Amino acid sequence: MQYTRVHNLNVSLDGFAAGEEVTLDHPIGGAEALFKEFDGRWINGVDLDNGPVGFGSALTTLWGQGIGAEIMGRRKYGPQTGPWQADDDWKGWWGDEPPFATPTYILTHHPHEQIDFANGTSFRFIDATPAEALKAAQEAANGLDVRIGGGPSTVRQFLEADLIDFMHLVIQPITLGRGVSLWEGLDDLQERFTVESASAPNGVVHQFWNHKRD
Amino acid sequence: MQYTRVHNLNVSLDGFAAGEEVTLDHPIGGAEALFKEFDGRWINGVDLDNGPVGFGSALTTLWGQGIGAEIMGRRKYGPQTGPWQADDDWKGWWGDEPPFATPTYILTHHPHEQIDFANGTSFRFIDATPAEALKAAQEAANGLDVRIGGGPSTVRQFLEADLIDFMHLVIQPITLGRGVSLWEGLDDLQERFTVESASAPNGVVHQFWNHKRD
Repeated sequence: MQYTRVHNLNVSLDGFAAGEEVTLDHPIGGAEALFKEFDGRWINGVDLDNGPVGFGSALTTLWGQGIGAEIMGRRKYGPQTGPWQADDDWKGWWGDEPPFATPTYILTHHPHEQIDFANGTSFRFIDATPAEALKAAQEAANGLDVRIGGGPSTVRQFLEADLIDFMHLVIQPITLGRGVSLWEGLDDLQERFTVESASAPNGVVHQFWNHKRD
Repeated sequence: MQYTRVHNLNVSLDGFAAGEEVTLDHPIGGAEALFKEFDGRWINGVDLDNGPVGFGSALTTLWGQGIGAEIMGRRKYGPQTGPWQADDDWKGWWGDEPPFATPTYILTHHPHEQIDFANGTSFRFIDATPAEALKAAQEAANGLDVRIGGGPSTVRQFLEADLIDFMHLVIQPITLGRGVSLWEGLDDLQERFTVESASAPNGVVHQFWNHKRD
């Protein structure tokens, strides 16, 4: 069975998981406060060289376990909007070694050639519904699970289509007042999921959402 | 920097982390209740096929991250005591593929030939103090961390020698009345460690112990 998973999704108390306007200087659209404790190195395992191991860093390491493909929205991939420019050599925020190391589908209405990296990451641009994109990603994942990588609009669309099996939410004890809402238009999620919560000493609440099964 | 870590150490409310008498039928010496929720498959990553992902299974996956060697006590390795018998072909509880997949040092006063497995596990029998054993394991770990694998007497000796940097304790909401104590003779551990706790819905409390640093 292949599952569809969301990891390390930081969300404010007022439900925002990104800012509204992504620019080159503000990859999270001005909502960088959501990520102020996040250390991207943890996704590959706890690294005690960086300091004491907390629950937050421990749970972050689930990110890549058993994952064979990712799906992300265009806004996570970059700040551009509209048709791609022929002279644009943008290859995402992550340099020559994107951390994904798997097929990675980017949802966009505008066609773009596939981009391959030596570490196994391949950016594949796809104009598709969530269900269609998930089918493509599952076929590419070689039997492993598929991660929905965000941003929040993309996660919300997959939740609306009831395609998410597992989510690790990180509820940050902050309010943003504005931004991209994770929850807008999603009624009665609690009827489809069980939720386990644990609070960290810094006020963060970690939640594991598991879709109910028969 | 190489750290010395303890993972998934189940302990009762009265401080016991194993039973007193290990036999072939009772590898935990009669204290099997401590492990009734433990699924050994989790040490290699969350496996959603087995059911919903809880915090307990998530934290269990830290076990092998960045580990290059293990040290265990003889009682974890098997039920035998005293000199090894020449006709004893015991190779531990774990069959042909022990999960360690690294050099694994077994503390014993009785000499025994090294046992190698195809998956990278090698059982190396050593008559040494905790500090001496740790030095040997660190040299074999190729720059990675060393796990103290238990049982509780072994962990307690390493705590007494102040050689532990990190511990993940799983406080089970049970009392055993007897067994091998993790804490006996250990005064004022709280002066050397910071402790982060999180409770799970089933009454289990997870604790991360990080040694204080300058």
